[in-house]
Amino acid sequence: MAEFIELLKKRRSIRHFENKEVPLKIIRDIIKESCLAPSAANGQPWRFIIINDRDLIKRLSDDAKKNLISYIEKNPDAPTKKYEAALRNPDFNVFYNAPCLVYIVGSKQVRNLYVDCALAACYFMFSASERGLGTCWVGLGTSIQDPNLLKLIGMPEDHKIVAPLIIGYPNSIPSPPERNEPQILKIVS
Amino acid sequence: MAEFIELLKKRRSIRHFENKEVPLKIIRDIIKESCLAPSAANGQPWRFIIINDRDLIKRLSDDAKKNLISYIEKNPDAPTKKYEAALRNPDFNVFYNAPCLVYIVGSKQVRNLYVDCALAACYFMFSASERGLGTCWVGLGTSIQDPNLLKLIGMPEDHKIVAPLIIGYPNSIPSPPERNEPQILKIVS
Repeated sequence: MAEFIELLKKRRSIRHFENKEVPLKIIRDIIKESCLAPSAANGQPWRFIIINDRDLIKRLSDDAKKNLISYIEKNPDAPTKKYEAALRNPDFNVFYNAPCLVYIVGSKQVRNLYVDCALAACYFMFSASERGLGTCWVGLGTSIQDPNLLKLIGMPEDHKIVAPLIIGYPNSIPSPPERNEPQILKIVS
Repeated sequence: MAEFIELLKKRRSIRHFENKEVPLKIIRDIIKESCLAPSAANGQPWRFIIINDRDLIKRLSDDAKKNLISYIEKNPDAPTKKYEAALRNPDFNVFYNAPCLVYIVGSKQVRNLYVDCALAACYFMFSASERGLGTCWVGLGTSIQDPNLLKLIGMPEDHKIVAPLIIGYPNSIPSPPERNEPQILKIVS
């Protein structure tokens, strides 16, 4: 029990990684465990794309940044606006120079796709943490539009990206960001 | 590590419960741990409603059944159609006669509400499992429309239900349903 709570607390969003590759075998093991997540009517709609190539990850970051800046220019009130300065910084990589990126994707036809893939992503993050690896769900990393890049990563046209998860060996594990007290709206008992 | 994998595998969707209440203190502890989940921009949009009252859970089930049948009648091609026989069975309780129901809800304004609340639900299910409790995410349990019931459970009008989670002491822990082999669409390395 104590160990479990330790695990819950150990899982932190990691944005600083050692310059060390993650063996593909370990990524595959983590993906296998991610598939133990529950899904609506046991549909298991999650599909995985593994990008273990820093150059390609950088190209994906550049495309995401371009698309996000273009979106912000058209929608100056968008919440993404707060990232504008970072996005315009040529040195900023939305994937934080992680050695590996895993996309959890699925068919646009699946009704519960976001929830099902989020549960698989949660298993992924725990499974990685248990192996001493750090992860971060990078919301900005969904904005890939370049057809050549989408083809290169093997993204089917009728699928969408739900969870872009970076993974690597953490340089350090930051303190947890502050958590609000649980907000329980009502107890009927 | 072995223990962790055990935990991942132990978390099963439970639909048969002992006739034994879950102490409110334990539910609160589980909710506290659920709030350790990550969320977009650390927004923590999750809110909780605890219903530790079998009569009210039954009334919520009856309302959900009524609304789902009405939906199926209007949309005979809906995927929910496959539950029609169960929904028309007066003895069927969508919450499987669980002693306790926790709704994870949040403001309709929050962009990433489904993903954020799904991550909190994932933590909830692990935290319960670690304590020997069983849970199930009951998708059918979102269909509550009766204004009196919504008021009774303290549901704010601008919120929506993301995760209806039943929780109780499992009568037995079923074998895991079959899992497909992980479907990795592409590896770039």
